[in-house]
Amino acid sequence: MTIKLIGLKRSTATLSVIVCLNELGLPYQLEVPANFSVDIKSEDFLANKHPFGKVPVLIDGDFTINESRAICRYLTSKYQGKHTNKILIPNDVHQAGLVEQAISYESFYYDPPVSKIVYQEVIYKFHGKESNPEIVKQACEDLSKVLDVYEKLLEGKEYLSGEYSLADLFHYPFTYYAYTYAKRSDLWDTRPNVKKWWERLCNRDAWKKSLVDIKS
Amino acid sequence: MTIKLIGLKRSTATLSVIVCLNELGLPYQLEVPANFSVDIKSEDFLANKHPFGKVPVLIDGDFTINESRAICRYLTSKYQGKHTNKILIPNDVHQAGLVEQAISYESFYYDPPVSKIVYQEVIYKFHGKESNPEIVKQACEDLSKVLDVYEKLLEGKEYLSGEYSLADLFHYPFTYYAYTYAKRSDLWDTRPNVKKWWERLCNRDAWKKSLVDIKS
Repeated sequence: MTIKLIGLKRSTATLSVIVCLNELGLPYQLEVPANFSVDIKSEDFLANKHPFGKVPVLIDGDFTINESRAICRYLTSKYQGKHTNKILIPNDVHQAGLVEQAISYESFYYDPPVSKIVYQEVIYKFHGKESNPEIVKQACEDLSKVLDVYEKLLEGKEYLSGEYSLADLFHYPFTYYAYTYAKRSDLWDTRPNVKKWWERLCNRDAWKKSLVDIKS
Repeated sequence: MTIKLIGLKRSTATLSVIVCLNELGLPYQLEVPANFSVDIKSEDFLANKHPFGKVPVLIDGDFTINESRAICRYLTSKYQGKHTNKILIPNDVHQAGLVEQAISYESFYYDPPVSKIVYQEVIYKFHGKESNPEIVKQACEDLSKVLDVYEKLLEGKEYLSGEYSLADLFHYPFTYYAYTYAKRSDLWDTRPNVKKWWERLCNRDAWKKSLVDIKS
């Protein structure tokens, strides 16, 4: 049975799951709620899909799961190595620990400032809302400090914990929107290791397919 | 070889790892850097312990790992079921998925407002800094909405995803400080299922031992 993904093509969290599905070679069907902002706050959606009224939600047979990072972890545990040879969380407990460490850097250091930039400069603009230049300035400063650390972490490494993993994957959506649409590419491009890392990520087949998926 | 935990007794992130170690029945030795705020920003610490200059850091034989949630996941993968019968992440892929879902609620909905309350009303006070009543008010409103959802999620359940798991464990430190020291117990106590959940968490032996550990 084809995996069903309830989400939105322009949703960053939906995009994470699409990349994960493509890395694992899993066909999926994207279902966009007809009346999006109303449907995801409906009683039925809150009770059976996502109690906080968010997307994405993944339906795999009779199993329903929400929250992009949780969905990607579930897909990885269940399907990695089955359809492609991609390993997104290593089986070795120490290697997996280092991936978890990098996932935590993404979730708690990288995501807060980069998501602020994207909300202020892309999402608010899309909805016709004013952005706050003070918030953007602070977020750029905070992200710069994080990227200085990434520059050192990536010295001599292709990906954050050596091999490509879920830790790198989780960086895609907000980096893509900040780099491309918020026109903040200098934050990545002025740091050689970070620049090469982002180029490497952009060259992955699963990412290229994901961009086609969300633009088609 | 005894596990070494570099951290601080009053650090919320250190406390998460202590609870995890106690749930798994793992003896550990807490090492507090002598000149804490200077030591964790030293060149050696940044290069070999934590690139962002934070605690906790765990040293297990010749393996070093940082970030509380990553450390707890590592300890769980390596040791669960070995010294106690506690299972913090289920082996079943679907049950584990639901635990991941609840971990994501904690990380991205619950943690931001509750940590703001604790920073403003406990940590800033400890450091003699003024708190901002507007930020506290907004954080209490945001946390109230999250707890309204938790009240429904916990209907007919003892813990967030049924059995006790890492998802519940990650709620301990900030809830404890907000409930006890920021005197915000009404946020939990006015919601019957949430109140019973927190009482259940407070009654766990590993938690009681952890409080003794950080107060001794």
